[in-house]
Amino acid sequence: MKTAKVRLFVDQPLGQGQSVVLEPKQAHYLFAVMRLGLGDPVAVFNGRDGEFRSEVTHAGKRGGELVCSIQTSPQSNPPDLWLMFAPIKKARTDFIVEKAVEMGAGRIVPVQTAFTNSERIRQDRLQAHAVEAAEQCGATFVPEVAELQKLDRLMSNWPAERRLMFCDETRAGEAAGLPDASGPWAILIGPEGGFSDAERARLGKMELAYPVALGPRILRADTAAVAALTVWQKALGDWG
Amino acid sequence: MKTAKVRLFVDQPLGQGQSVVLEPKQAHYLFAVMRLGLGDPVAVFNGRDGEFRSEVTHAGKRGGELVCSIQTSPQSNPPDLWLMFAPIKKARTDFIVEKAVEMGAGRIVPVQTAFTNSERIRQDRLQAHAVEAAEQCGATFVPEVAELQKLDRLMSNWPAERRLMFCDETRAGEAAGLPDASGPWAILIGPEGGFSDAERARLGKMELAYPVALGPRILRADTAAVAALTVWQKALGDWG
Repeated sequence: MKTAKVRLFVDQPLGQGQSVVLEPKQAHYLFAVMRLGLGDPVAVFNGRDGEFRSEVTHAGKRGGELVCSIQTSPQSNPPDLWLMFAPIKKARTDFIVEKAVEMGAGRIVPVQTAFTNSERIRQDRLQAHAVEAAEQCGATFVPEVAELQKLDRLMSNWPAERRLMFCDETRAGEAAGLPDASGPWAILIGPEGGFSDAERARLGKMELAYPVALGPRILRADTAAVAALTVWQKALGDWG
Repeated sequence: MKTAKVRLFVDQPLGQGQSVVLEPKQAHYLFAVMRLGLGDPVAVFNGRDGEFRSEVTHAGKRGGELVCSIQTSPQSNPPDLWLMFAPIKKARTDFIVEKAVEMGAGRIVPVQTAFTNSERIRQDRLQAHAVEAAEQCGATFVPEVAELQKLDRLMSNWPAERRLMFCDETRAGEAAGLPDASGPWAILIGPEGGFSDAERARLGKMELAYPVALGPRILRADTAAVAALTVWQKALGDWG
């Protein structure tokens, strides 16, 4: 049996014998770019039903069809962990989204802090980026990329039971480490311009917030995101 | 006293009262790009003598001079840790070098594995990239970027006392964790094409080699580099 060269996210129900109708873009990618033909295998997942092996049963210029055979991986969801970060330059923001998916964040939340330069993001573009990252890294789950929201508003409506690990380079000395507590969590990466005094004071007063230091050097936001996710996953997540 | 807006690596002796003669490129950057003038402060480091505050004493089109005043940080060297990785696409290789500096690797060693596509690297370009990363992240040390070398040759001449943490996605189940051992270490990131059977067998037979798993998803090499450095620095390095 040939191994599938392509792994594709499809927003459709999956199951043994289930047929999957391809969108024009997907058909173009499979048949024009990747040169697949009738009978070729494709690994498919939809974020809910695990991963299935499928075969091409129709290959057209503007469409096509796959039919699922066996399930190749059960559905596996990451922990209930939000990754919150202040968007920076486009390429680095893309990297953070990609890294968050690979590292197993459950939800990606771009936040606008007092010193964030970026006023807007392209949520749909970042979401597509998350899909691509999931296709690449073998995940069966695609985290939602939330719309950009203001950090102070998010703090005002903070869910009571969600713990927060926050990475603030200026508070390295106070870092206390993570409590051995399961349940919902969020990681907040300090923005490259730093937190404002008001933000820092507010975070300091939050009951379930834990400052964590990420070493003696200053990390860029994308590096800090991977490092923080590693620390959390090793201690409390699915890296056990 | 004004804060220095610019942090500059200079390959010259530093000390109180020491003058630093600028190269044409550095003068262009300070005076044309960053618009500094006489008396403006510049933070300088040379990788050996810590960080000094200096002031511009001569600003020309093709040269200039700084004079050091006080030492602002003592020299701080990272642990004796090599980061070994198989170079991939240019942008991702640049990222790995940048990340290795931020994360505190002591030496960066590009290796050619059986399934590495890249046959050559621009060592001088990557070294310049490491310097830039050190300027950005506040480090006083710049790791050497070694020339590309073949993994099997490196294994044949492996220094007896250097421990090796290697990240092999296909061996996640066998991962044993790191021993609590100080001294020289190296991290080897699995190449994106995977290790060959021969390489894997050889690594498996090495006495001081420890396979480490980086979670249930497949990480790209640049993500794996940051994650592996985080795991090592938290357990054995300077993140204490």
